[in-house]
Amino acid sequence: MPNDLPEAVNTLVEELRRANHIGSALSLLGWDQETQMPAQGAAPRADMIGALTEVHHARATSESMGDKIAAAEDEVRGGDPRLVALVREAKRDWQRARKIPSDLAQEVAVTCSRSLMAWRSARAGNDFKTFEPQLKLVVALKRRVAEALREGDGSLYDTLLDEYEPGITGAQFQAFCDAVKPRLVQLVAEAAPRCQELRTDFVTAGYDSDRQLEFSREILESMGYDFTRGRLDLTVHPFCTGISSPNDVRITTRVDPKDFTHNLFSVIHEGGHALYEQGLDPEWSGTPLGAATSLGIHESQSRLYENVYGRSDAFWVHWLPRFRAAFPGRADDVTHEQFVAAVNCVRPSLIRTEADEVTYSLHVMLRFELEHALIEGNIEVEELPDRWNRLMRELLGVEPTSDAEGVLQDIHWSMGAYGYFPTYFLGNLYGAQIDRAARQAMPDLDEQLARGEMLPLREWLGEKVHMKGRQFSSLDLVEEVSGDPLDPLGFVEYLEEKVARLFPA
Amino acid sequence: MPNDLPEAVNTLVEELRRANHIGSALSLLGWDQETQMPAQGAAPRADMIGALTEVHHARATSESMGDKIAAAEDEVRGGDPRLVALVREAKRDWQRARKIPSDLAQEVAVTCSRSLMAWRSARAGNDFKTFEPQLKLVVALKRRVAEALREGDGSLYDTLLDEYEPGITGAQFQAFCDAVKPRLVQLVAEAAPRCQELRTDFVTAGYDSDRQLEFSREILESMGYDFTRGRLDLTVHPFCTGISSPNDVRITTRVDPKDFTHNLFSVIHEGGHALYEQGLDPEWSGTPLGAATSLGIHESQSRLYENVYGRSDAFWVHWLPRFRAAFPGRADDVTHEQFVAAVNCVRPSLIRTEADEVTYSLHVMLRFELEHALIEGNIEVEELPDRWNRLMRELLGVEPTSDAEGVLQDIHWSMGAYGYFPTYFLGNLYGAQIDRAARQAMPDLDEQLARGEMLPLREWLGEKVHMKGRQFSSLDLVEEVSGDPLDPLGFVEYLEEKVARLFPA
Repeated sequence: MPNDLPEAVNTLVEELRRANHIGSALSLLGWDQETQMPAQGAAPRADMIGALTEVHHARATSESMGDKIAAAEDEVRGGDPRLVALVREAKRDWQRARKIPSDLAQEVAVTCSRSLMAWRSARAGNDFKTFEPQLKLVVALKRRVAEALREGDGSLYDTLLDEYEPGITGAQFQAFCDAVKPRLVQLVAEAAPRCQELRTDFVTAGYDSDRQLEFSREILESMGYDFTRGRLDLTVHPFCTGISSPNDVRITTRVDPKDFTHNLFSVIHEGGHALYEQGLDPEWSGTPLGAATSLGIHESQSRLYENVYGRSDAFWVHWLPRFRAAFPGRADDVTHEQFVAAVNCVRPSLIRTEADEVTYSLHVMLRFELEHALIEGNIEVEELPDRWNRLMRELLGVEPTSDAEGVLQDIHWSMGAYGYFPTYFLGNLYGAQIDRAARQAMPDLDEQLARGEMLPLREWLGEKVHMKGRQFSSLDLVEEVSGDPLDPLGFVEYLEEKVARLFPA
Repeated sequence: MPNDLPEAVNTLVEELRRANHIGSALSLLGWDQETQMPAQGAAPRADMIGALTEVHHARATSESMGDKIAAAEDEVRGGDPRLVALVREAKRDWQRARKIPSDLAQEVAVTCSRSLMAWRSARAGNDFKTFEPQLKLVVALKRRVAEALREGDGSLYDTLLDEYEPGITGAQFQAFCDAVKPRLVQLVAEAAPRCQELRTDFVTAGYDSDRQLEFSREILESMGYDFTRGRLDLTVHPFCTGISSPNDVRITTRVDPKDFTHNLFSVIHEGGHALYEQGLDPEWSGTPLGAATSLGIHESQSRLYENVYGRSDAFWVHWLPRFRAAFPGRADDVTHEQFVAAVNCVRPSLIRTEADEVTYSLHVMLRFELEHALIEGNIEVEELPDRWNRLMRELLGVEPTSDAEGVLQDIHWSMGAYGYFPTYFLGNLYGAQIDRAARQAMPDLDEQLARGEMLPLREWLGEKVHMKGRQFSSLDLVEEVSGDPLDPLGFVEYLEEKVARLFPA
């Protein structure tokens, strides 16, 4: 950590790190559970997670932590705004954690670890009915958590959302949705028919799995992902986890031997998350100043890389010739325009993680509506499948033929992550505004991408976003970076411009 | 755990498991460090290990644990001998752990994690000089540990040895060495020249790496290793770790694309360890009755499988045809006799882990002599390389040309494991006596092996050894299994018989 810190801040930082080391071990337990653990390790793993959660909770909520926060608060008052932010965020975490009794924290950890396993077999067996009681347990537990956390008679859902996206309420999120949804629906209606004419045959022409991984690793390295501080593994669902950021940040991906887009864009997406974690300030690791602002800001980074840059014209100027060389006979006669159009093809579909950039946010809005109603007690778990299918029809005009490709498709609700989905849409909103700022700062950004130069972009994001940690709230950070308050319409304007350009009427 | 436990024992078991969950997390941190962790994860990893060690130590030494042990001790007095043993061993662990101050325990964990990394680069760079200060730190720390642990003015080395092999003293171990060493040296002198005539060219004829792994996995499965409770990974040094035994027991191996023996016999060896951990009593997991007796007994299992069975005539009756089919053109014209002789070839060499069954124990005696002198303060770290080389010449007639193939070859001293090496030789002694008992109980054991049937052997070892946990000391267990006190000469007699049979004068 920085030298010459005031004494009480210094003491607080040490105490925060003591708790954070346990948090890092918990992250590793989770990563291992998803990537390495043998099947029968599940039962003892839940106990291990429960035990470490107890320890983490004890350290995060200790009187000693409270005393150190109070001492540091006195010390920094009116001083260096970064130190003020450090103490403010430490206090927020401590106060929130204090409201959750230790046994509830453990119960949540153990139940969610178990229900994640149950979800996995439910999805594989397309069996919502068997999973239902387990999911009810999770919902009931998370409602108890929300009740413990909320101030006065505030909304239960807001309380949970605040964990992932501090400062954003359900009503505010709803307002963003209301502003954007009609224009998105309109855009899908315009673009989807035009996309039916596109040449997309080559996308599913079959791609050697090893070579897919080599190619995406090459892109990852050119983005600036540092393999001495991370690794890439295979899982059913790609994810990024900062075990001890910025020094150990791991990502996972999947490979479809037919369709190259799954591997490629999931690697770029998780790579965007990983650049954020690897770009956190090492001097402040283990403290709020060395941690991500929010999940929405996190998602802005992954979606910027995956969509705004990774599916851009400029990006493929550099990478398409390399793609052709890596997969001879696959896209030899596909023009640059055809290729870029194909990887941006707008097509309403059932699976969120495979959705295009335009329809994606509608998948999120559906989930927000359902989880909001669930947590507020307005619908029951057993109603989920029907409501899911009805909303899919309304928003996207498609309907699942099974729960596996419907309500069971996502991991989030099984692991107790309610209030998490909104951050995906917020990431799109933040990202569009950050991209505008990036282009003002680097007017030649497209030329850089076209030359395969992605390090200046990482530098800029690093300085403007990654290194800020939790000094600002999401909305303040976006304003700090771009000079303007968040304009939720910036995202849809960006999409409208892109659709008009790639798929003209 | 078993139903209807007396109340105080039940409470103690819960308390033991609370500590054990943290121990499991520590095992995972260690496994990950060796198999998955990116290079720059090392620094935060040491902190994570330090933090969890602190927690583990606090739980293992708590007043509350002491109270529960005392209550259980009263409750079981004169009752069920298994419960008496449970409490006795819990008390032993608690008393030992109480003697180590928490900061010392953490310092050891952090220093050893760091020095393991330093050893790795020292070995790669053949640079003992740079590693020396780090190793001195470790030796000094372990001497402090021994001072904290020892009773009265007992020997420091004995105190450390007692951690790995409870009940065996340095003097006792020395007596075993004195009894066996001259006959081993004599046996090497007889066998080595005869082995020079053997046909061994095919051993290093080049073997496809993937197929080696397939073949050794097949053997592992036939031994009874359960992949739903474990996994096999690649590391520089093969090892087995019970993360949460018996449900999550992982092994690692290495592959030499030229020489098939490295992969094959390391898998069988680690498989022997893994069968032990997977064979522990699940009802008692997380307690001394669900843990291995000692490292010596552990090693008896791995060396039985690797050498006594895995290099036997009978074993290869079944497996040689499969070996030939898996690696066409490699051993087509090698007779059964030639094959078995080759994998038992006696040849004094520099590297312990590659040593044959006859010379192996001499490598261990060398390390015992040096580490004993080091811990007792009779030699200094800087003297190690010369003394190592001199002893190699005396015992085995060979001399390293670099420290990388001399004193730097093993991981143990860098990670603070003093008193660990003796367990390798003890494993040989125990194993020979357990094998005799197995053959009395199963007179057709060789016929079983010749048919590729290894599950009855695992059943028998499971019942006689694995399921016993820490109910008996090593020596008592060997006597319990075989009906006789340990005869250290049994091992050398077994070798003399084998050498006379495979390599007649």
